[in-house]
Amino acid sequence: MHIGLVGLGKMGNNMRARLRNAGHEVTGYDNNPAVSDVADLAALAAALPSPRVVWVMVPAGKITDSVITELGTVLSEGDLVIDGGNSRFTEDFKHAAELEPKGIGYVDAGVSGGIWGLENGYGLMVGGTKANIELLMPIFDALRPEGPREEGFVHVGEVGAGHYAKMVHNGIEYALMQAYAEGYELLDTRKDIIKDVTGTFKAWQRGTVVRSWLLELLVQALEQDPEFEDIEGYVEDSGEGRWTIEEALSNAVPVPTISASIFARFVSRQEDSPSMKAVAALRNQFGGHAVKKAED
Amino acid sequence: MHIGLVGLGKMGNNMRARLRNAGHEVTGYDNNPAVSDVADLAALAAALPSPRVVWVMVPAGKITDSVITELGTVLSEGDLVIDGGNSRFTEDFKHAAELEPKGIGYVDAGVSGGIWGLENGYGLMVGGTKANIELLMPIFDALRPEGPREEGFVHVGEVGAGHYAKMVHNGIEYALMQAYAEGYELLDTRKDIIKDVTGTFKAWQRGTVVRSWLLELLVQALEQDPEFEDIEGYVEDSGEGRWTIEEALSNAVPVPTISASIFARFVSRQEDSPSMKAVAALRNQFGGHAVKKAED
Amino acid sequence: MHIGLVGLGKMGNNMRARLRNAGHEVTGYDNNPAVSDVADLAALAAALPSPRVVWVMVPAGKITDSVITELGTVLSEGDLVIDGGNSRFTEDFKHAAELEPKGIGYVDAGVSGGIWGLENGYGLMVGGTKANIELLMPIFDALRPEGPREEGFVHVGEVGAGHYAKMVHNGIEYALMQAYAEGYELLDTRKDIIKDVTGTFKAWQRGTVVRSWLLELLVQALEQDPEFEDIEGYVEDSGEGRWTIEEALSNAVPVPTISASIFARFVSRQEDSPSMKAVAALRNQFGGHAVKKAED
Amino acid sequence: MHIGLVGLGKMGNNMRARLRNAGHEVTGYDNNPAVSDVADLAALAAALPSPRVVWVMVPAGKITDSVITELGTVLSEGDLVIDGGNSRFTEDFKHAAELEPKGIGYVDAGVSGGIWGLENGYGLMVGGTKANIELLMPIFDALRPEGPREEGFVHVGEVGAGHYAKMVHNGIEYALMQAYAEGYELLDTRKDIIKDVTGTFKAWQRGTVVRSWLLELLVQALEQDPEFEDIEGYVEDSGEGRWTIEEALSNAVPVPTISASIFARFVSRQEDSPSMKAVAALRNQFGGHAVKKAED
Repeated sequence: MHIGLVGLGKMGNNMRARLRNAGHEVTGYDNNPAVSDVADLAALAAALPSPRVVWVMVPAGKITDSVITELGTVLSEGDLVIDGGNSRFTEDFKHAAELEPKGIGYVDAGVSGGIWGLENGYGLMVGGTKANIELLMPIFDALRPEGPREEGFVHVGEVGAGHYAKMVHNGIEYALMQAYAEGYELLDTRKDIIKDVTGTFKAWQRGTVVRSWLLELLVQALEQDPEFEDIEGYVEDSGEGRWTIEEALSNAVPVPTISASIFARFVSRQEDSPSMKAVAALRNQFGGHAVKKAED
Repeated sequence: MHIGLVGLGKMGNNMRARLRNAGHEVTGYDNNPAVSDVADLAALAAALPSPRVVWVMVPAGKITDSVITELGTVLSEGDLVIDGGNSRFTEDFKHAAELEPKGIGYVDAGVSGGIWGLENGYGLMVGGTKANIELLMPIFDALRPEGPREEGFVHVGEVGAGHYAKMVHNGIEYALMQAYAEGYELLDTRKDIIKDVTGTFKAWQRGTVVRSWLLELLVQALEQDPEFEDIEGYVEDSGEGRWTIEEALSNAVPVPTISASIFARFVSRQEDSPSMKAVAALRNQFGGHAVKKAED
Repeated sequence: MHIGLVGLGKMGNNMRARLRNAGHEVTGYDNNPAVSDVADLAALAAALPSPRVVWVMVPAGKITDSVITELGTVLSEGDLVIDGGNSRFTEDFKHAAELEPKGIGYVDAGVSGGIWGLENGYGLMVGGTKANIELLMPIFDALRPEGPREEGFVHVGEVGAGHYAKMVHNGIEYALMQAYAEGYELLDTRKDIIKDVTGTFKAWQRGTVVRSWLLELLVQALEQDPEFEDIEGYVEDSGEGRWTIEEALSNAVPVPTISASIFARFVSRQEDSPSMKAVAALRNQFGGHAVKKAED
Repeated sequence: MHIGLVGLGKMGNNMRARLRNAGHEVTGYDNNPAVSDVADLAALAAALPSPRVVWVMVPAGKITDSVITELGTVLSEGDLVIDGGNSRFTEDFKHAAELEPKGIGYVDAGVSGGIWGLENGYGLMVGGTKANIELLMPIFDALRPEGPREEGFVHVGEVGAGHYAKMVHNGIEYALMQAYAEGYELLDTRKDIIKDVTGTFKAWQRGTVVRSWLLELLVQALEQDPEFEDIEGYVEDSGEGRWTIEEALSNAVPVPTISASIFARFVSRQEDSPSMKAVAALRNQFGGHAVKKAED
């Protein structure tokens, strides 16, 4: 197939390469002219055969919004837009509704795999009509990992379902990482007992119940920097984890490990903790317990 | 009554004063001669009328152990020892068993109220035989707050029960403080909306569902330092919270807020977090997400 | 003053009584004619002196929306509406903006105190302009508890700030209740040690660090039903707790005890837990651990 | 090698098979004569060449204690005992000290892999002297999975270190399972959006960040019973999770996801929740909120 790809950052660039490696023709657009194949979205539309297929791979939120709105002006009835970014599933309803009156189809695709996707393939969760998904299968098959299709690809449901599944995937991911991290801290704290922390994680890669791809990545990280000396315990979050908890709240689903993972990240980014100042102040008030004075 | 009091620190000193104010005779011993009424425990024993009553108010653990062991050598059959410190309830079984062959009675007393006890009285939770508790009632009545006895004193059960109740009391206390602290952080973070954080807590002191003594203390702390500028978010913990969770684990009781409170304290004391380093390293491995480099 | 009061349910009815006891004239409207003083909102508007003041005390969400919209049609320039219900603070922005073009003022009031407010007074947190708050002070003074004004009333900030503070108040409240409840379960589980669970809570009412109004209510509940035999461990939640967590997520504030409290309520309402079925299934898969078979 | 194996339950039996498949001679003892190769431990000792090697694979606690004590009476200087069960690491210190005066060596082995170990091999974490570990390498090599030794085996440290690592492994495992389970519940709750829950988990097996062995097992479980209709959400715990949290408490390591996982299991086993009864009672007291009446 010949498709358009908007957004040639870390993810988009790799996806273009993987699609081309699979024999697809890809015309890429990025607002950075150095990496873009065409000058603008109008030129992208002009370069594609009809019906056009355009995969959007830009940051969620306003940037995705504006790309989709502009695509609505350069594409025509019968064309198809895929949002492969990390949009919230509720955005998909809005985007599909915006394109629908123009006869432009819409599919949302949750894409997992990070920088390893170029080599390993991307786990794909997609939402949309059966017809649109079938039309796109050659693209999905090129992007997904080798092996049985159903082990790296799923048509989750209508528009929005792909991003919903991806959101939950990321919520789980947050808690998985936190779980390994807690275990790491415990082993690291007891180096009087654990003489080989890296070796212990390494040995969990085969045969154990906790073996996983994240474990393998942790082993790689530890082999590069066994004491994590070069790194600060400062962790960003990019939205999906928060949305997962908001969805859980809306549906009365308890998610204690996912929320614990997010809160740990919030704390990791604080220079000092207002809440712990309050607790310190309280202990001082009732018990006369010394507080640690802030330095000037 | 005339009783002996071992340990004249922050708590013991205040308790001696409150007992004397109530008309009791108190002979105090402390290893700091400047505050001690007698030279040693033998002198303390010699100074007391028979049957002797000795209240121990020293740090839990080895110090309490050694004081009780030494009291076993200077006291006689029919005497009575009260441990009013923050000992773990399992220690009481040991201490009572140590004194029992000598005919020395044992009572454990959980004491709450901190530095305010001198003025307000102490909340008391005691464990021991009915006869021993009755014998000590004049002391308990002097220490406990004004008002109905049952609102500031309870005979919880056999030896150990007083400290058990105090342990749970402190576990609850940890979570209560954390609850107010989380609310404080949220209000403090949204000062664009909340124009008067201190005033908000102040206004909760009457009529609201969250009114409490801890809330009043938080108001006092905020009035002294409205931004907590002089204080670091660094919080110690003294044992009872951990024991509460260990008891919960032993009895399959879920204690999510109490454990969250303890973990928040642990994190508050870390210069950097090994677990969050691990999460940062993982994100870097799979997504190429930038890490915050440790400074030299 | 003479004010209108819309909504004469559990809260509104008590507030009308407390206002009347304080010498204010109150014309109440409720869609239940049996308790209403007037036939409809138009009649309410007609009954009030100008400038009119109308306090709205109806369920948050659509009902509050429709009452405020209708008030916009029956009130006039210079009149003033107060939303004293449990609306989300973001609703206040909408309601104020709806009334503003008509010259009708808007104040939001967070009201705490439950069914005890009639007797004890209500804790009040209000948002709005200084002029509007001053105008309403006689009403606020009648509703708030005896004692210094600032201990039961606060002007938190602009429109929305009152409900924001109330939202956080309720978030804290959730965690406080959960804290006592965890302590209760631990004491209740160890009745081999704790011979008097009710008596222990009772004794915490004076002198202790954990004394509070909620503790007093727990004592009352335990005295009525010491084993909670008549009650199921099934707990609703009414919105503010969830909103608090959503706000915390939006502002990167860690709220582990508040979220634990909400999740405990979610679980309490489940007949069976899908997540724990999944864990049971996993243990069966890797370890051959028996699962508990669902009954037919 | 020719080794003795005490305990031929689910795990021991499979291990005997795997060792024999690898060409080792195994004399097994179990108190169930139907599966035992010898009549008693004395007969086991008599059957083994000197220096004898005996692998103990029985339930942790009293049974392991008594087996090791009895082995102390039937083995001789220079013999070697391995505890491969799920003993707490502190037990290893005791067991090693018990055998040491008799000149009997001791090694602890954490063994992961469950019922799949027979086929896949077992992940092994061992503690003991270098000499003892080297002596046992043929056994370890037979038990561990195919592939590089260091990916399925680690010599963690001195006696106790193997079980310490296994304890942490299991703590992580608890949280990993809970993470997937929370995601499952969210997907399952929104079947209006997620039209293929099983298919979604299935599609995560390749390419995604959350791929793991546990995920594969969850897929198997869902394929067998897509709605978990035959299973109750009731989950046991076997000790290591609790010990992990106790160790975390002793070392001031925050473990919010591991503790959340344990507490979720505790709740899953309760017919009704005392703590949630207390919360329901509190809400009734302050707000007049209806409680769910217990049925007779």
